[in-house]
Amino acid sequence: MGEFQLNSVAELGERKIIDIILGCLDLMPNILIPFGDDVSAVNIEKGKLAVLKTDMLVSKTDVPLGMNLLQAARKAVVINISDLAAKGVAPIAVLASLGVPRNFNEKDIEQIGIGLNAGAREYDAYVLGGDTSEASDLVISCAVFGIGEKKRIMLRSGAKPGDIVAVTGSFGKTSAGLKILLENLSVPTKLRRCLVGNVLMPHARLDEGLALAQTGAVTAAIDSSDGLAWSLHEISRASGVGLEISNLPIADEVSEFAKMYKFDPVELGLYGGEEYELAVTVKPRLWKKVSEKVSLIRIGQVIEEKALVLKMGKKTSSIEARGWEHFKTSLAESYSR
Amino acid sequence: MGEFQLNSVAELGERKIIDIILGCLDLMPNILIPFGDDVSAVNIEKGKLAVLKTDMLVSKTDVPLGMNLLQAARKAVVINISDLAAKGVAPIAVLASLGVPRNFNEKDIEQIGIGLNAGAREYDAYVLGGDTSEASDLVISCAVFGIGEKKRIMLRSGAKPGDIVAVTGSFGKTSAGLKILLENLSVPTKLRRCLVGNVLMPHARLDEGLALAQTGAVTAAIDSSDGLAWSLHEISRASGVGLEISNLPIADEVSEFAKMYKFDPVELGLYGGEEYELAVTVKPRLWKKVSEKVSLIRIGQVIEEKALVLKMGKKTSSIEARGWEHFKTSLAESYSR
Repeated sequence: MGEFQLNSVAELGERKIIDIILGCLDLMPNILIPFGDDVSAVNIEKGKLAVLKTDMLVSKTDVPLGMNLLQAARKAVVINISDLAAKGVAPIAVLASLGVPRNFNEKDIEQIGIGLNAGAREYDAYVLGGDTSEASDLVISCAVFGIGEKKRIMLRSGAKPGDIVAVTGSFGKTSAGLKILLENLSVPTKLRRCLVGNVLMPHARLDEGLALAQTGAVTAAIDSSDGLAWSLHEISRASGVGLEISNLPIADEVSEFAKMYKFDPVELGLYGGEEYELAVTVKPRLWKKVSEKVSLIRIGQVIEEKALVLKMGKKTSSIEARGWEHFKTSLAESYSR
Repeated sequence: MGEFQLNSVAELGERKIIDIILGCLDLMPNILIPFGDDVSAVNIEKGKLAVLKTDMLVSKTDVPLGMNLLQAARKAVVINISDLAAKGVAPIAVLASLGVPRNFNEKDIEQIGIGLNAGAREYDAYVLGGDTSEASDLVISCAVFGIGEKKRIMLRSGAKPGDIVAVTGSFGKTSAGLKILLENLSVPTKLRRCLVGNVLMPHARLDEGLALAQTGAVTAAIDSSDGLAWSLHEISRASGVGLEISNLPIADEVSEFAKMYKFDPVELGLYGGEEYELAVTVKPRLWKKVSEKVSLIRIGQVIEEKALVLKMGKKTSSIEARGWEHFKTSLAESYSR
């Protein structure tokens, strides 16, 4: 009968899975934010949008050894808030659906409750509801709601040649911190605290995202939860432009750590994932104004040619379209390259 | 040291788990809909509410043998829409977070996509976004968003003595259908189609919920996803009243099935769960007007004494506060009593 072989999800990877699902969906007419951007939105009144995001944390892929339940639950909230931050929208309400393994006890549940509350309250939001089910893994699926101004919202798709590419902070700490946790590497206490701390207590750049949206100078924005390289590729793809990166923002601590263990700091900084800095493109004539208001690192510029170019000294290379991807990468695989 | 034994979640049950989490949360000031009602809400403009709901479907507890992936994904959407229906709010947007086992293939993913879309489109909503992760169980966590009118929203808490208790349809089909599936019982085709069909393709009473909200006659409302008994207890608890049920709305097909296998039809009708009819209380002077607009079965009345009384002929008994509860009941346990 010549049956063809169906690909497993492990072969497909997260992005292909999402494509298959999108192919099954009826499109909402006059959709305000295209599929695949960081958030979804619905018109609610003149000029205002209801902004929604949902992202699921699953213990076996998103909770590294060494992260406790409070930290895991807090992270489940923060990863969603980071997506709203990237669009310049303040979170108001969080809903949390929990899948809980049978062997959890009441103390575990309390730690999860405290973590959810902490994640929301740090960003002035509240947990308003949720539900619990039994599951084999710990699963925390949060939905976050906020209200955005239509004219202020920052999409991935507006970057223009000549715009300045910038980020809200340096990269590589999460990759380095995960390596320390997963490979049980020994590093000086101060360095460990910085790098591992970044993994256990990620921070969404909400203040920066809100301030950036107010400037009206940002042409494209994204968070970097799948890694800097992937985020830059997304801006490139959604905006139909290329990016030339001339100042790779590797954290000093990452360079120090890489030197100790002979890792490639560029690999750690570009392809790690699970970092929550924002990557933005800014109108050049407003750069001065913007950079006075928000602390940004200028890393390159938007170019016409649809390519991602990395310039380091005299060397030019291309930035690959890879990063964190569920199914294809696991915590262990991804961070022990 | 006298360490005390911590209770496992299996001992605690879903409702105690939710209580523990609620105890950890800061309360939003001027919260519009109390914790524990079917949905959560945020003020968005004069008289309007953003209404949000999230509920997670996990294969091992919510997907019985015989339900395919399309049906499971559709159900994951419908169970959330049912909660909005109970409040009289139309769904606009659905977000879906998926946890997918590694052995799923692209055809499986497509079936899930088709099911998600079907569940939303049946109720004029659209799937706007979501994400996928790897998980041991199939997990589909949907978040549904709608806009409600503050003065029209139907809470669980407004029932007054003298109000009429009514439901949008008869009960017990899901319990019976699940028994047929799980215990592989043989029944005539027509009966099987009715009872099993109800399990595989649940229907949210959205039209009824929207029409009921418009009458302004409903004092309390809830869906019956945890079973009729539990839903009535919730109205009783939230409103601080009792209910006297004199006309238990058992479906004819359920009576027929119960007779065949010597099951108790009252047990099937009251304590089953996973049914999506609405239970409401209605101002008596507006009953005629309401029942002309919406097809309702009158089942009893609200009483002052905080008790749930079942009157069947000359026999009076009390309705127990039990029904479907995650962790405490599994599909197999729950439906083979």
